[in-house]
Amino acid sequence: MKKEYLFAPGPTPVPPQALEAMARPILHHRTGKFREIFKEISESLKEVFQTSNQVLIFGSSGTGAMEASIVNVLGPGDQALVINGGKFGERFLDLCKAYGIEIVEVPVKWGTAVNAQAVQQRLAQPGHKIKAVYATLCETSTGVVHDIEALGRVVAETNAILVVDAISGLAADQLRTDAWQVDIAIGASQKALMVPPGLAFASLSPKAWKTVEANPRKVFYFSFQLARKALEASESPFTPPVSLLMALRETLKMIREEGIDKVVARHADLARRTREGVRALGLELYAPDVSSNAVTAVKIPQGIDGSLFVKRLREGYGVTVAGGQGSLKGKIFRIAHLGYCNTFDVLTALSSVEGALNDLGFSCEPGKALQAALQTFETTH
Amino acid sequence: MKKEYLFAPGPTPVPPQALEAMARPILHHRTGKFREIFKEISESLKEVFQTSNQVLIFGSSGTGAMEASIVNVLGPGDQALVINGGKFGERFLDLCKAYGIEIVEVPVKWGTAVNAQAVQQRLAQPGHKIKAVYATLCETSTGVVHDIEALGRVVAETNAILVVDAISGLAADQLRTDAWQVDIAIGASQKALMVPPGLAFASLSPKAWKTVEANPRKVFYFSFQLARKALEASESPFTPPVSLLMALRETLKMIREEGIDKVVARHADLARRTREGVRALGLELYAPDVSSNAVTAVKIPQGIDGSLFVKRLREGYGVTVAGGQGSLKGKIFRIAHLGYCNTFDVLTALSSVEGALNDLGFSCEPGKALQAALQTFETTH
Repeated sequence: MKKEYLFAPGPTPVPPQALEAMARPILHHRTGKFREIFKEISESLKEVFQTSNQVLIFGSSGTGAMEASIVNVLGPGDQALVINGGKFGERFLDLCKAYGIEIVEVPVKWGTAVNAQAVQQRLAQPGHKIKAVYATLCETSTGVVHDIEALGRVVAETNAILVVDAISGLAADQLRTDAWQVDIAIGASQKALMVPPGLAFASLSPKAWKTVEANPRKVFYFSFQLARKALEASESPFTPPVSLLMALRETLKMIREEGIDKVVARHADLARRTREGVRALGLELYAPDVSSNAVTAVKIPQGIDGSLFVKRLREGYGVTVAGGQGSLKGKIFRIAHLGYCNTFDVLTALSSVEGALNDLGFSCEPGKALQAALQTFETTH
Repeated sequence: MKKEYLFAPGPTPVPPQALEAMARPILHHRTGKFREIFKEISESLKEVFQTSNQVLIFGSSGTGAMEASIVNVLGPGDQALVINGGKFGERFLDLCKAYGIEIVEVPVKWGTAVNAQAVQQRLAQPGHKIKAVYATLCETSTGVVHDIEALGRVVAETNAILVVDAISGLAADQLRTDAWQVDIAIGASQKALMVPPGLAFASLSPKAWKTVEANPRKVFYFSFQLARKALEASESPFTPPVSLLMALRETLKMIREEGIDKVVARHADLARRTREGVRALGLELYAPDVSSNAVTAVKIPQGIDGSLFVKRLREGYGVTVAGGQGSLKGKIFRIAHLGYCNTFDVLTALSSVEGALNDLGFSCEPGKALQAALQTFETTH
């Protein structure tokens, strides 16, 4: 008998309340009833983003909102400063390239976090046309969380705006959008928001709106201005993914009940337990000092085939984790503790890792990781 | 954030395949399509019951089929031998009393299993009118599994038939209906069959049918003869619980794929792990030598309030276990490892028990039970 467990950093498990909501008959999106729901969702998203700004909603994956943050912000001749420390820093580069935007790259060694001073120095150089700094909250490919607060301080001193891909980090890592002076924060549904993929979000500060309004480039589906205008009437400019929004309404209720700070604290607790467990097995963390609360990257031990290990977890234990991407392929595995996740899930993940490692000849004392993870066990409720 | 876990000995968790099947539009039950499905289900049930007899299906809880096994079998003036070692032995007594049937009780100390010789001796006494012996496979209230094979040998030598309440035991404890000469075996949907409550089953041997056919008492909804007649046309005599049957079709597919002997072996493995874990905490099993694979009864340790403990598990950890019933109220708790359940579930159950005991002042070393449960951990897939 096979039960399936999803410990990949997105999509994450969807709670039953949200699954139930998606099973309901479809509401039409141009009705008063739907507008009320849409308004409720957009208000609740503000709490998750910790912002007083409107949060725009797009029917797309997170990359759609990342694209929006490029095309709405940057016109011909503008420069983008892109902090690149992994696969999702690279995605901003790819987007800039696709639109012919000149890139000022701040490369960051994979597995480390950006130094805000490096960004400050680059912005202080004369003669550039950098209109926006593109950063990542949680770099999903390495499990690194970047110091957005420090970047916010640096960028706020300039005319540039700070754009943060918070897709996998939102509601798992702390993100105080307004307090940290983040101008555009980007999220998506399939991470800590516990909804299937298909919704992306962007909040814009007044400073960001000024940049957007001054940008001569015209866009349509991903237009921030069209989305804002529709949102003023509690609507979406185009047909929205109605059933996903119904699910989101339920998960936002859950987040509101728990409270955003407690949601983040829970993720921090699960991340800590996972790391204590993994260390107890003699495994090495990939980014021990700058680890995100969303996902833990672990080095594949010497002598173990990384792809075989991930395959063994899936086929032998019904457990899905993520392998390494790009240059880390076969070298790390990534366990998410993200979204609809508690201490019991961490125990499941760790015991499956113990089992699969043993299966492949890397000897683990059964239960050792679990004992380490539980050393400070208390209810998470 | 609260996730809910069901470790009570029924109802048990329903796998997603079955939940999906229940979400489909209702089929009409007097159609060729439904008859095909009904036939498929009744054939699959034979494998689960390990019988070549037809398995009758009733739209009721398990008690409905227990009642059927009384009213179809026993007429005015007949005697019933009832083996009574717990709440569900008592249920047969209550049913007999309701119908004015004379009872020959073989009382069994709670927490112990019946001695087949005691039954043999009682049946050997002259002058009785015992037409049926009522036994329990797994006595859910105490977690005791009774030796049905031995009872089968004893009863087969007489004119009486052997009726076994296998409701919570079926597919968790071994039950070889034909090989063990069980005349009527009774099951229900909400245990190891992994379907919500609402379906009950009864298989009848040729010897049982003779007794039923000779019984002058007339019944209707629970009539074995009406159910058999309808089943010959792949139908149910009355409107059946269609959506539950759709779910059952899916879970029977799962059981067929795993194989009934492997399903039973998995339950034995989970039971063993649970007991090793519980013992490692210094807790005492209620029925260590005759424990069912379906449920483990554990003595509440000295100084702990049993009801508070069960409440703490539910409210603090989202974990539902069962407390004690009748004279065992407050004295034991019962963890089921039943149905859609694997080793990871056992770890969840044990860690919640550790947590709740600690919360109430009974000191447990965190992770100790889990380590014990995992000593021989291998994939259950």
